[in-house]
Amino acid sequence: MRIGFLGPMATFTDMAVKHLFPLQEHVPFMTIPECIEAVHFEKVDYAVVPLENTLEGSVHLTVDYLFHEVELKIIAELTVPIQQHLMVHPDHVENSMEVEKILSHSHATAQCHQYLHRHYRGASIEYTTSTAAAAKYLKEHPEMKIAAIANELAADTYGLSIIQHGIQDFDRNHTRFVVLSRTKKPLELESGFSNEKTTLMVTLPSNHSGALHQVLSALAWRKINLSKIESRPLKTGLGDYFFILDIEQAMDEVLLPNAIKEMEALGCGVKLLGSYPVYSTE
Amino acid sequence: MRIGFLGPMATFTDMAVKHLFPLQEHVPFMTIPECIEAVHFEKVDYAVVPLENTLEGSVHLTVDYLFHEVELKIIAELTVPIQQHLMVHPDHVENSMEVEKILSHSHATAQCHQYLHRHYRGASIEYTTSTAAAAKYLKEHPEMKIAAIANELAADTYGLSIIQHGIQDFDRNHTRFVVLSRTKKPLELESGFSNEKTTLMVTLPSNHSGALHQVLSALAWRKINLSKIESRPLKTGLGDYFFILDIEQAMDEVLLPNAIKEMEALGCGVKLLGSYPVYSTE
Repeated sequence: MRIGFLGPMATFTDMAVKHLFPLQEHVPFMTIPECIEAVHFEKVDYAVVPLENTLEGSVHLTVDYLFHEVELKIIAELTVPIQQHLMVHPDHVENSMEVEKILSHSHATAQCHQYLHRHYRGASIEYTTSTAAAAKYLKEHPEMKIAAIANELAADTYGLSIIQHGIQDFDRNHTRFVVLSRTKKPLELESGFSNEKTTLMVTLPSNHSGALHQVLSALAWRKINLSKIESRPLKTGLGDYFFILDIEQAMDEVLLPNAIKEMEALGCGVKLLGSYPVYSTE
Repeated sequence: MRIGFLGPMATFTDMAVKHLFPLQEHVPFMTIPECIEAVHFEKVDYAVVPLENTLEGSVHLTVDYLFHEVELKIIAELTVPIQQHLMVHPDHVENSMEVEKILSHSHATAQCHQYLHRHYRGASIEYTTSTAAAAKYLKEHPEMKIAAIANELAADTYGLSIIQHGIQDFDRNHTRFVVLSRTKKPLELESGFSNEKTTLMVTLPSNHSGALHQVLSALAWRKINLSKIESRPLKTGLGDYFFILDIEQAMDEVLLPNAIKEMEALGCGVKLLGSYPVYSTE
């Protein structure tokens, strides 16, 4: 079985893939659309992409691509804590305070703002396309006095030495990754899951004020709870949105199907993105 | 009176500022946080920043900064159509098909993807920090065979020649700009406004499932209509959000204040971001 993921090697997505599919073949793709299309066009069996982060919010590229471009299902979710480490080439462990430049992805750099401000105020910051790309650059430039912010897997993969663990300002930062498939069969792991979710993408009937309230009513009186609601632009005009609803339960026989049928009867478009188990690496 | 705006000169925000405040002093800032802080710390009287775009969705930096960092009010909104033009240095109008490189902001380039694919497939694309920065670079490098994608104001400001008007793929692309102030007095223009809006930022009581439905119920049964609802991460943990509600009416004497009081009685935090007129340049 072939599993596509948002590359390069040693990104946080790679960590997620290794956890979910330790024994399968992993195929990195350089962009989220390429990764999603690889499943759609049957180049891979599944794809793993990021969907949401505690600090940054939804990954719009993933959400929009799933709504506008393809008909794929989410068959599992994996939550991964985001731990950032400061690392250098092994030749530079002794003189690590002389680092002149720190490389990383702009999000990772922002996540470690306070640490960098306190300990490396004189160093310049340079952005790379991923945290793994920063680690790779260090390996290829042992002569330079540079450090990278990246994860443990990147340090292992590129043979770098971690000089400070867990330098992120905020300890409860997580990313939600999802597994995408052409069929809706949920992914079952031996480790067992903590809970289940169902995700719907809903468009409202045009010019029907109060329609969103009706959609939420159809769920609320049945005691179907939402863990998330988010609007995204339909790209047809300012003020036109679709809504992503994360429901805190798996698809059942009666309540959720009836709620969806009623939304459709009200003129809503409902796309069932999946009903899936939620796993965690912790 | 001094008006801060997201610079540099000749951006779409500059167009918005010139429309709203034709006679006042305009002060450009290089980032959205700097621009917002300039009002907060009384360096300027008002600030104009982008809040939402038809294709890209909300400008998260603006929304998050207004929620987390400052206590400012929106006192007006201006909707501006986003028209992109292809321009060159006047020396190169004759041989404009020989353009080797096209410069612009990544969003503008994406908006003109089909046009570029059809007419300039051989040209490389280079990203700049704003459309105006691309125009400025052209003016400073008359010897290079390059073109920029930017707005009409940038062509005027930097003395460039537009060789193709309106090259965006999608004609109904607009950006919403807002005027921020330390006081809540709405901005009144001679031109008159098309409608009014009230924007609330709401946090829900923790672990109270169905609370979002209650918030929307408090508005729905009073026939108070929403034009937008959006969730943003609270940055405290995955699954914690605040909600931005755009209401299609100005603050009134009874209905809206009572709805807000009831939300607060339910344990919600409600931040009134403003009740303001909506203007348009069209």
